[in-house]
Amino acid sequence: MTQFFSEAASAEAVNARIGENADERVREVMSALVRHLHAFAKEVQLTQPEWETAIDFLTTAGQLCSAERQEFILLSDTLGFSMLVDAINNRRPAAATENTVFGPFHVAGAPEREMGACITADGKGERCLFEGRVLDLEGRPVEGARIDVWSDNADGYYDVQQPGVQPRWNNRGIFTTGADGAYRFVGIKPVSYPIPHDGPVGKMLATLGRHPYRPAHMHFLITAPGFQKVVTHTFVGDDPYLQSDAVFGVKASLVAPYERAADSDTPWRSTFDFVLMPLAPPA
Amino acid sequence: MTQFFSEAASAEAVNARIGENADERVREVMSALVRHLHAFAKEVQLTQPEWETAIDFLTTAGQLCSAERQEFILLSDTLGFSMLVDAINNRRPAAATENTVFGPFHVAGAPEREMGACITADGKGERCLFEGRVLDLEGRPVEGARIDVWSDNADGYYDVQQPGVQPRWNNRGIFTTGADGAYRFVGIKPVSYPIPHDGPVGKMLATLGRHPYRPAHMHFLITAPGFQKVVTHTFVGDDPYLQSDAVFGVKASLVAPYERAADSDTPWRSTFDFVLMPLAPPA
Repeated sequence: MTQFFSEAASAEAVNARIGENADERVREVMSALVRHLHAFAKEVQLTQPEWETAIDFLTTAGQLCSAERQEFILLSDTLGFSMLVDAINNRRPAAATENTVFGPFHVAGAPEREMGACITADGKGERCLFEGRVLDLEGRPVEGARIDVWSDNADGYYDVQQPGVQPRWNNRGIFTTGADGAYRFVGIKPVSYPIPHDGPVGKMLATLGRHPYRPAHMHFLITAPGFQKVVTHTFVGDDPYLQSDAVFGVKASLVAPYERAADSDTPWRSTFDFVLMPLAPPA
Repeated sequence: MTQFFSEAASAEAVNARIGENADERVREVMSALVRHLHAFAKEVQLTQPEWETAIDFLTTAGQLCSAERQEFILLSDTLGFSMLVDAINNRRPAAATENTVFGPFHVAGAPEREMGACITADGKGERCLFEGRVLDLEGRPVEGARIDVWSDNADGYYDVQQPGVQPRWNNRGIFTTGADGAYRFVGIKPVSYPIPHDGPVGKMLATLGRHPYRPAHMHFLITAPGFQKVVTHTFVGDDPYLQSDAVFGVKASLVAPYERAADSDTPWRSTFDFVLMPLAPPA
């Protein structure tokens, strides 16, 4: 059937072209994408100069991408799209620890450390004791949970952003729980920092009247046999950017206590329990 | 007001961040974009691997862009988005000539040629006489209309795609109408050709079971003092890809007669009148 393009049936004309043998999921995703993109352009009556701005934005973003910089993930993050995809794919009962964005600064293969060890190697920042337990939904300790942690340093940079300046694996480490499910390590009280904002995403944020800062947080990637992976942070509750995280990562349940401790070497303490979902959800 | 991210109110959380002093049009466009993107992800329940595929697609597309290649325009074209934006911004009464996509192969500064001249310099292809008139909505001839024309050669490539192979300005020229509004030039009967499809857009088309071909067409960019610009093509009606233009550029009103002529040197003739809208639309 002939179906020339028309403004009124624009998305239908495009989607009618999808071949009979196309994968059904590809058809579903791409036809929905076309419908929503066309509905967007129609709703705002997108102008030709605005279209050109979008093409330039995407092109500049692509040209900036490298092994150290992923501008499209920043775009997805700052539009709340990364958090949405994470939410869709990680719905959990209220008792379980919530996910948040993975972020671009995780590095696989961090050192396995003794329980209680210090992950900070550059001597900067205020030391903080992180402690708590990894539990199942019934409150039983999870043995053999691997807790992969990482944070920025006191200057607001991850080690990978400052190779040669920070010691390798600064503020990173992996800890494995014993029979009591407990974890304990020393790091620094993390500090807030701006996401890379010298590219098109930074310009977009400025145009929207938004700042590029993330509230201070410690990253946790927790895996355990028989349990679903948790990718999350704990946030420092008094951070000025807690209400306005540039990537929308904050959830109320992830705001952790960061309290003054009596220890002068380690003047902060943050206690937080993680509750894991079983791999096969209970019926 | 605190508005942490939630799956249910994801777009609202993002749009609540737009600053008070942001430009109103920026707010309108970006908040609609966020709403539609989030609605898309929710409708299809986008998975994490699909999100990763999208990030890779955009990154690869961006890295491929150069002075000679614009993969994001190809993406916009093949999703019918370019045609939609053109349609939104160029609504005209039925009597006026319709627009279609500009395409990436126009080059400013083509040679001004004598009316009736030949634009084909490589000796390839079947010669075709293009002729007709430029008229206003009342059918009166438009004097001083500049008609900028360009097409591929008989091998399916524009001159700029084959520098050093095709003569410069092959199948390009600019003609200016006299008091009778008439135009007349010799080119070739254009041939269908694939858009560049060795990149991510080509892969996307293959995944969707779509071919990358455009039906044969001659490009026209017509400007005249006091009239709105027309960016259009005339299409060869017997082209096998007429019903399935990879960029959705075909409109029924733009399918032109390409008829056999008695002249053995110029065995084809295509007659087409262009009707221009005045700059200030009639009340």
